[in-house]
Amino acid sequence: VNERRFKHWGWGYEDQQPSEQAIRQTGALAAGHLGLAVSDIEAPVALERVQLREPRVRPPAELAEICAGDDHARASHALGKSYVDVVEGFRGRFAHPPDFVARPREESDVERLLEWCAGEGVAAIPFGGGTSVVGGVTPDVPSTFNGAVTIDLRGLDRVLEVDAVTRAARIQAGAAGPALESQLGEHGLTLRHFPQSFEYSTLGGWIATRAAGHFATGRTHIEDYVESARAITPAGVWQSRRLPGSGAGPSPDRMLAGSEGTLGTITEAWVRVQPRPSHKRSAGVRFETFAAGAECVRALSQSGLDPANCRLIDAREAAMTMAGDGSHALLVLGFESPDHPVDEALARALEICAEHGGAVSEARSAGGDRGAAGANDAAGGGDAVSSWREAFLGAPYVRDVLVAIGVLAETFETAITWERFAVFHERVKAAGEQALAEVCGEGGRVTARFTHVYADGPAVYFTAIAPARRGEEVEQCGAVKRAVSEAIIAEGGTITHHHAVGRDHRPWYDRQRPDTFALAFAGAKAAVDPRGVMNPGVLVDPRVLIDPGARIAPAAV
Amino acid sequence: VNERRFKHWGWGYEDQQPSEQAIRQTGALAAGHLGLAVSDIEAPVALERVQLREPRVRPPAELAEICAGDDHARASHALGKSYVDVVEGFRGRFAHPPDFVARPREESDVERLLEWCAGEGVAAIPFGGGTSVVGGVTPDVPSTFNGAVTIDLRGLDRVLEVDAVTRAARIQAGAAGPALESQLGEHGLTLRHFPQSFEYSTLGGWIATRAAGHFATGRTHIEDYVESARAITPAGVWQSRRLPGSGAGPSPDRMLAGSEGTLGTITEAWVRVQPRPSHKRSAGVRFETFAAGAECVRALSQSGLDPANCRLIDAREAAMTMAGDGSHALLVLGFESPDHPVDEALARALEICAEHGGAVSEARSAGGDRGAAGANDAAGGGDAVSSWREAFLGAPYVRDVLVAIGVLAETFETAITWERFAVFHERVKAAGEQALAEVCGEGGRVTARFTHVYADGPAVYFTAIAPARRGEEVEQCGAVKRAVSEAIIAEGGTITHHHAVGRDHRPWYDRQRPDTFALAFAGAKAAVDPRGVMNPGVLVDPRVLIDPGARIAPAAV
Repeated sequence: VNERRFKHWGWGYEDQQPSEQAIRQTGALAAGHLGLAVSDIEAPVALERVQLREPRVRPPAELAEICAGDDHARASHALGKSYVDVVEGFRGRFAHPPDFVARPREESDVERLLEWCAGEGVAAIPFGGGTSVVGGVTPDVPSTFNGAVTIDLRGLDRVLEVDAVTRAARIQAGAAGPALESQLGEHGLTLRHFPQSFEYSTLGGWIATRAAGHFATGRTHIEDYVESARAITPAGVWQSRRLPGSGAGPSPDRMLAGSEGTLGTITEAWVRVQPRPSHKRSAGVRFETFAAGAECVRALSQSGLDPANCRLIDAREAAMTMAGDGSHALLVLGFESPDHPVDEALARALEICAEHGGAVSEARSAGGDRGAAGANDAAGGGDAVSSWREAFLGAPYVRDVLVAIGVLAETFETAITWERFAVFHERVKAAGEQALAEVCGEGGRVTARFTHVYADGPAVYFTAIAPARRGEEVEQCGAVKRAVSEAIIAEGGTITHHHAVGRDHRPWYDRQRPDTFALAFAGAKAAVDPRGVMNPGVLVDPRVLIDPGARIAPAAV
Repeated sequence: VNERRFKHWGWGYEDQQPSEQAIRQTGALAAGHLGLAVSDIEAPVALERVQLREPRVRPPAELAEICAGDDHARASHALGKSYVDVVEGFRGRFAHPPDFVARPREESDVERLLEWCAGEGVAAIPFGGGTSVVGGVTPDVPSTFNGAVTIDLRGLDRVLEVDAVTRAARIQAGAAGPALESQLGEHGLTLRHFPQSFEYSTLGGWIATRAAGHFATGRTHIEDYVESARAITPAGVWQSRRLPGSGAGPSPDRMLAGSEGTLGTITEAWVRVQPRPSHKRSAGVRFETFAAGAECVRALSQSGLDPANCRLIDAREAAMTMAGDGSHALLVLGFESPDHPVDEALARALEICAEHGGAVSEARSAGGDRGAAGANDAAGGGDAVSSWREAFLGAPYVRDVLVAIGVLAETFETAITWERFAVFHERVKAAGEQALAEVCGEGGRVTARFTHVYADGPAVYFTAIAPARRGEEVEQCGAVKRAVSEAIIAEGGTITHHHAVGRDHRPWYDRQRPDTFALAFAGAKAAVDPRGVMNPGVLVDPRVLIDPGARIAPAAV
């Protein structure tokens, strides 16, 4: 089989590499629209020109068949997909390649791998789509480990069982969005979990990182869909009972969700599925200001109407994604149901919008579902809405182009209670803009949108974009990231609403989570991973790893 | 202040003790309706005739002011409120009274208490309303401890802050339902969490045990309302950040929820509140069989209509609570909103009912809210519905009467996926009826209702009722409990959907939770409670407590 290979840097497959002409066109368009000066096009460093560090360990004979140590395997598993990761890969800098990559074909392969890792003091990095933007899959492990192996779970991509009565499905952890949806589609069902990384990210990765899908209310995070999860830990199988609800002790699934591979490797889960929606209505609503839109969204979030889509986009971001002329904030509002018409819900929502000064720019009934892989269909509808949708799914590809033309682009996502929102938004945005001005000079901007809304507050997503200085992008981006993260933590937000903690967010996460919880979590990890081999460096301060042969000491609190 | 005292046994206050005449009337009515032979009325053993075990430890001088060691304090904190607890208290048997009871007036009192307990090797039992029906507050601790102190948190009962913009309130853990609702009511807000124990149970107890309220869908368990929780552990304060949503690591709040006092004492929480509903519609629907009703409820649960009430009651239970003639199962269906009419939702739900053979017995619009303390108002409406509501809140009082007249009554609650429901219901019911027949002879019965419904399955609540043999109630009830619990676990259910694990459910919980999770949780506990003093005996097998001065060893798995 001549399989498509993933790029060794950037988003998607090698055959999706844009041509120089396409980059030039896209770049000129994007830059012109952004009003940014653009550098000459730079080409990525070819893999043949990359010299990777010598592997410190080799796969044992009994696992050799599922392991690969070639340059492509190692380079394409050395980084995630943050802006900095893409820059590093583009320049051919792979500071922390795994010593080899293992590709389990069945769960017992994972068990054998973890046993070997624990025995040899080798770090194990679970890897799904590799789409982490927070250093979650980077094999940057303490030097006390004898090496690092990446466990690429994409071979475990089957829907194993469908329980149509309960509306639940048992799915392997390595199934990415489209594969998972197409298998469910054969049963007329859908998971309807559409993160921006949908094309590549996997069920196991979603659960490990508490990923959020595209829908604005209700089941926002993947753990809300999990009926039962299964993982392999160094101490054995972690398998919860399939239950619609339970009050028996703290939820095992909720301890696994967000554990980012530190307790074990998730291998499968039973998730709640549903029929595709047959009733849909959507609208775009314009507001004079983002603040006015936010007050309206607060009312909507507290109305109990639970719109599937409720994305407020500020004027500049709407313009950037060609969904507005830059003079108004845009609210993308959508309702859907597999059972009953949603006209009345939309009508009431638009009443609330009107009460808050919103002007309905379009309101229409969307047609049928766009197919199993058709994310974002709840927002289906008019032009502005469609433009925004294209931009949403295409953004990660565009990032690769931006790197090639010397534009810095990074995102920061968080959540905050309504009472603090206005000041929070102002200060985080100001911190980002100030940092951009300092490190990038003129032309930078920070835009905002709501990705999810709760009755008690929004999830706010900031995009920073500016002309970069070639060769200094990593430092420039780091400075902006630090400034924004400091502001988020200082103003009461969460360092992440759905991108996870990884290695990049850990310094701020350390200030956010209760010290006693960190102590408890380290105790839990030590109990199931006594040699500390599971994804060391994420969530828990790696300095508490004394040596890979010793137990993890509790975090100093 | 001449404070009302709680009964030293049974439900409620001393002045709510029914008169002999009232017992005779209620007993005759209940027994007649149940078709049970009733024994002569027995009177509870007066507290003066009770001889409590000598205290093993006395409060230290610096805590003496907030501690009490009198018989009433010790006896009224020696048991929970299960049927067996009530029988034991009624007979004057208090096998495990706390050595003394501490009543913190402020959070620092809790810190001082836990420090003293850890230093002295004395077990600390957090106590809210004392309404546990699973041995959660019984100071039955391993003999390796030097004593046991109950921490009664009812002095911490204030709503400390209300954030009306965010719709959240900061409330002390010892606030019971009515006090909490009346303070929120001053702000036009409500928590709307109405467990059956609402009158006495507390916010902290709800969170510690993952209590479920009265509403059937949506936010069923209290942890869904928790924005941020705060606890005092022996290792320090556990305080999460107020956030509407987060993806930063495993949720600290979700590790505390259901921890049943084993990690620390919850002292306060920010919870999501809402305005009272202004739009309400409800109906009663009759079904030929419970199975037919269940199929309809499955359709309703998967419709996305999210009824506030969706309680299916089998024919015998409907008759017992005088809400039916025993020939039909009854579905109590209710919708409510603070924002918009719910007529269309009810109409669609009744269409679904009709499609499944349901006969609408009444459908009406309920009036305004019944006041801050008015639980169950979403079900307000016609006669059958009202009868059922009265029975719901009154049941714990009736249980005291049943003990006095020699009737055994116990409940078992669980949850199961839809696919397994039919067989599960049949086998659990059969196991209960067989055990009742064996230990109680003729006249026993097991009835069922749904308390909560999810798209992937119902929470099923079984009531077992039978004539008891005086003096043998504890053994009789134990035999039934074991038989039903075995069936629940064997057939794939959870040992508890909302009553918690406590000491009574632990043998079955040990078989339900993943062994690796138990290992992890024991590790987490050991990290924040190195002396193991926090409520030993619940959740974690007490045999892993080597001695109170040593760290908890991992559970044998």
